[in-house]
Amino acid sequence: MTSGSPFAAFSFWPHLTSQQQQQLIRHTVTQSYPKGSLLHDGSTDCMGVLLVQQGKLRIYLLSEDGREVTLYRLSPGDLCILSASCALEAITFDIFIEAEVPTTLSRINAAIFQQVMEENIYLKAFSYQLIADRFSDVMWRMQQILFLGIDRRLACFLLEESASVQSPQIHLTQEQLAKHLGTAREVVSRMLKYFVDENMVTLFRGGVTITDEEKLRRLAPPSF
Amino acid sequence: MTSGSPFAAFSFWPHLTSQQQQQLIRHTVTQSYPKGSLLHDGSTDCMGVLLVQQGKLRIYLLSEDGREVTLYRLSPGDLCILSASCALEAITFDIFIEAEVPTTLSRINAAIFQQVMEENIYLKAFSYQLIADRFSDVMWRMQQILFLGIDRRLACFLLEESASVQSPQIHLTQEQLAKHLGTAREVVSRMLKYFVDENMVTLFRGGVTITDEEKLRRLAPPSF
Repeated sequence: MTSGSPFAAFSFWPHLTSQQQQQLIRHTVTQSYPKGSLLHDGSTDCMGVLLVQQGKLRIYLLSEDGREVTLYRLSPGDLCILSASCALEAITFDIFIEAEVPTTLSRINAAIFQQVMEENIYLKAFSYQLIADRFSDVMWRMQQILFLGIDRRLACFLLEESASVQSPQIHLTQEQLAKHLGTAREVVSRMLKYFVDENMVTLFRGGVTITDEEKLRRLAPPSF
Repeated sequence: MTSGSPFAAFSFWPHLTSQQQQQLIRHTVTQSYPKGSLLHDGSTDCMGVLLVQQGKLRIYLLSEDGREVTLYRLSPGDLCILSASCALEAITFDIFIEAEVPTTLSRINAAIFQQVMEENIYLKAFSYQLIADRFSDVMWRMQQILFLGIDRRLACFLLEESASVQSPQIHLTQEQLAKHLGTAREVVSRMLKYFVDENMVTLFRGGVTITDEEKLRRLAPPSF
């Protein structure tokens, strides 16, 4: 009776009782969201645990004055657990989640998830370990923001994006690049001009093309 | 047979087999460290799990060029788990830990801790939940750094310190304040001058006295 749940592939699943499995199956829905949908809005809602089936989620922080810092992104097969923060007493900070492209998600109801997690130590360990994974992602991003110069951060980001879309062409505006780096458009604009002058990239309307990956990589931090 | 371990008070302890308890007891040592000791140095060592018996630990990030950002502090009764990062596959970032004052710690060997954690799901869940708690602390600090102006951050920090030592007198130099806030001494110096001019604090050699807590609190973020 374990078929029927998109969550059955995860390591906690065989450790659930069949009653717990049925409970999760009954309270899982699959929904599609248009590009730009705000799925989770700080502390005001609690969607539950999300499994990305198609598309891409962006998880970010938002300041009172509207500045954003992207923490990480989730792709098909990834689980999003901070969207169930109401079910996790250890998580007390607010994040925002948007669908960056048209996205299809399977979602376990937060209250049911919490109930099963409190009954089943395997699900609890799995959930908190997943959070620790994300903690590592976030710390990496934070160290970039706190400690690296904008040049290195922008170089690093362009290389990441290029690897992610498997193309030297990156379709992000300077406004979008600035948002991702938590800085001003002018700063990105100035730095891109420097990259162009150094023959590392060329610009097109709405994007950037990497022309010298090696040179850009030398700017990016050693750990990249 | 559960006596003899300073860790016996934690919720995972009764879920260990008596063999596992004995293993942890046999590999727990209690040691004292002078003020300023560097206990954990990025990724180069792995002390294990620490329980603060006396004193105070400071957990911080360090940039390549020597800048520090304090993430959180631990007091008597607190557990430090990131010092066992080698035993935690989900933790891939490097932190530094120093004894801020003379400090006494009980320490479980990292390899033994890892072994018992892999055998015992309760210890695993406990450990990762503790990490999620710290994640929340760190996110709060990061949001302060990323989103708040220095004035609000300094106000917030002075109020925290004052609450922690239960006195309006805070014995930290401008150099130390700057380190804690991840900024330059000049910035702190300028901001303190502004606070003095506003009659919120007075300065003494090696420290700051809060003279108008209400006014300072109005500068600090609403969540404080």
